[in-house]
Amino acid sequence: MIRLLLAYDGTSFRGWARQRDPAIRTVEGVVSTHLERVLRERPRLSVAGRTDAGVHARGQVASFVTASSIEPSRVLAALNGASAPEVVVREARYAPEGFDARFSASGREYRYVVDTAGVSDPFSGRYVWHRPGGLHVGAMRAAARHLGGEHEFTSFCRHPGGSRSTVRDLQRLTVARDGDRIVFALRANAFLHQMVRSLVGTLVKVGEGRLDPDGVQAILASRDRSAAAPVAPPQGLTLERVIYGRRFTSP
Amino acid sequence: MIRLLLAYDGTSFRGWARQRDPAIRTVEGVVSTHLERVLRERPRLSVAGRTDAGVHARGQVASFVTASSIEPSRVLAALNGASAPEVVVREARYAPEGFDARFSASGREYRYVVDTAGVSDPFSGRYVWHRPGGLHVGAMRAAARHLGGEHEFTSFCRHPGGSRSTVRDLQRLTVARDGDRIVFALRANAFLHQMVRSLVGTLVKVGEGRLDPDGVQAILASRDRSAAAPVAPPQGLTLERVIYGRRFTSP
Repeated sequence: MIRLLLAYDGTSFRGWARQRDPAIRTVEGVVSTHLERVLRERPRLSVAGRTDAGVHARGQVASFVTASSIEPSRVLAALNGASAPEVVVREARYAPEGFDARFSASGREYRYVVDTAGVSDPFSGRYVWHRPGGLHVGAMRAAARHLGGEHEFTSFCRHPGGSRSTVRDLQRLTVARDGDRIVFALRANAFLHQMVRSLVGTLVKVGEGRLDPDGVQAILASRDRSAAAPVAPPQGLTLERVIYGRRFTSP
Repeated sequence: MIRLLLAYDGTSFRGWARQRDPAIRTVEGVVSTHLERVLRERPRLSVAGRTDAGVHARGQVASFVTASSIEPSRVLAALNGASAPEVVVREARYAPEGFDARFSASGREYRYVVDTAGVSDPFSGRYVWHRPGGLHVGAMRAAARHLGGEHEFTSFCRHPGGSRSTVRDLQRLTVARDGDRIVFALRANAFLHQMVRSLVGTLVKVGEGRLDPDGVQAILASRDRSAAAPVAPPQGLTLERVIYGRRFTSP
């Protein structure tokens, strides 16, 4: 079992998940194609966060079982030689028996950045949502307090699916100002599909004064996606870190 | 006369200067095409720094004369609507009689960033020279001291041309460490073609221990480009600021 710590610029990928059509460029597609070349077998990748099209990662974790006796350091060098800097392997190492990047993860941390400056910045424009005009941070923080903790997040999920639980434990949701930027930091045991972008879209509506901070309680209670604001665009979102229990924590 | 303060990501441009072949994408080509649409006439742009292919700018200055009575704020909005965030107009305003972005400039400041980390970073990889492995900052600073001031920089210039002077006044050349990064900051009255990248290439050779810090004196004295190290790649270079005399300084 080998475990990879990955960073990528999601701009020109149609998300993590490999698609049937090989013409559709995905992060998993690129990583597994290059892995296949070094391993001489096609690996099945497990991943902690299936990021959507345009979403970035600084601390994504993926794992795979291999019959090959290849050293992780060679996997790292081969992948970086082929795909850096767009996709980078920050670490590659053996994982203990039973490790699975997705199922062993106990938490995920995401960061969403809104740039409120009048003019966008060419050097960070690919990694922020450029939305000119001030936002009321105090109001967004008040709304965030209603969202923290364990809730049924059906209203903030795309395609909740019929029978699967939409209960998630939102362990952290902070709103910080950094110059013209507003930085949202979120941590949960796991996130539903488009949950971060949906929460940010609704918080921005609060920051604009178009929704009362207490209004988010009604949205949560409605369990209806149409009650929430439109989702924030993907490019402001980055998967920062995946958290594992002590058994699987980095040495 | 209108004056523009521009920022751009040079990655997908073949430099500033418009080319005869319209299929070759340049910053000047993009800016003047969009300007033509708002002004209803093709402007002749004067620019402070004719950046090469792949080189970025945070504080480029361009100017043009126009018969149109258009407000600068409309020029800014129209250009940003069409080309942000790749090319951004940070400011647009009327310039006093006699102003010319190129000939009125008294100084230019460039920044060059080398990333020495083992693995490149997907979010800044487009804006640095990723060159893994430590560099000796003290040695590079010692070499930099020989380069500061007024010199004939023929050895650090591509195509010096027959009769034109290659004397430039290098008013500042600092080397700083910022984590895994080495940041070179340079200021001169004007720079010769590829002068910054040539100086950085030679300083990196010093930092690697392959050239003695005092060796740069012999390179300067030789007035021979082949004496200098190969030029550093373009993507680490950014035009940060253009300096104008008091007459033309921002209010």
